[in-house]
Amino acid sequence: MKLIMAVVQDQDSNRLMNALVENNFRATKLATTGGFLKSGNTTFMIGTEDVRVEKALEVIRESCKSREQLMAPVSPMGGNADSYIPYPVEVSVGGATVFVLPIEQFHQF
Amino acid sequence: MKLIMAVVQDQDSNRLMNALVENNFRATKLATTGGFLKSGNTTFMIGTEDVRVEKALEVIRESCKSREQLMAPVSPMGGNADSYIPYPVEVSVGGATVFVLPIEQFHQF
Amino acid sequence: MKLIMAVVQDQDSNRLMNALVENNFRATKLATTGGFLKSGNTTFMIGTEDVRVEKALEVIRESCKSREQLMAPVSPMGGNADSYIPYPVEVSVGGATVFVLPIEQFHQF
Ligand code: NI
Ligand code: NI
Ligand code: NI
Repeated sequence: MKLIMAVVQDQDSNRLMNALVENNFRATKLATTGGFLKSGNTTFMIGTEDVRVEKALEVIRESCKSREQLMAPVSPMGGNADSYIPYPVEVSVGGATVFVLPIEQFHQF
Repeated sequence: MKLIMAVVQDQDSNRLMNALVENNFRATKLATTGGFLKSGNTTFMIGTEDVRVEKALEVIRESCKSREQLMAPVSPMGGNADSYIPYPVEVSVGGATVFVLPIEQFHQF
Repeated sequence: MKLIMAVVQDQDSNRLMNALVENNFRATKLATTGGFLKSGNTTFMIGTEDVRVEKALEVIRESCKSREQLMAPVSPMGGNADSYIPYPVEVSVGGATVFVLPIEQFHQF
């Protein structure tokens, strides 16, 4: 058994959970501090047999990999019109940081 | 030293924390995403000396093990009376998923 | 690579995050249950190369180490004046519990 800890962006969290369930992985989500206030992270804990580690990594990469995304311009509210960009911009979203940890014992009660 | 990560149901969380403290274990609880909305999980991080791992596992099993519980019928509000079950039903509650991890260093500052 | 799990008091959390960023460490904060209700803990997950583990431990110790602090007396509200202590008292604050875990694989997607 291995324990996979994967830190992903909140916006990819549901897609990853669905993909894990579809592939019969069991995962627990840990909340991050400050998740209510800004675009935050979610940490997944995934317990898996050794032979399925590669598949789990593939599911994480496909659900969360860093990519460019067009962001619609947001009209400034009453504010600094100088900083207003009136066309969509490309921003980098997603990404995952993944740790695979050895386990000495695994139990289900 | 070992680090035990135990994922348990919220409803068993207080009982487990009390049992751990009674047995001189030190634990930290990690919140789960969505814990406010549905019956969620709590993840305990428990640091313990190697010789006390078996005792910690026993405490977790006794506080959280999966068991049947009678659930009182809930009267449907305005709703679909067809799905109303007018007698208590047995539901499975509790359970714990436990990982015992090796530690290379342990420090208290 | 190593994964460092550090449990620190909420009040030291911002100082630690700043010190980690200054020293080019990447960290994720995990929220604790009950953090809204009482002085709680924050758990930092820090992934680092083996050669920088000692530096990370030094940063954690300097930001969070247990120390004495003078606490201003709080006037009892309507309450038991017998228990009122009309001078500052020293309380112990801070402290960190730190686990250094081995990693089998580390990935960034
Ligand atoms: Ni294994
Ligand atoms: Ni040990
Ligand atoms: Ni290494």
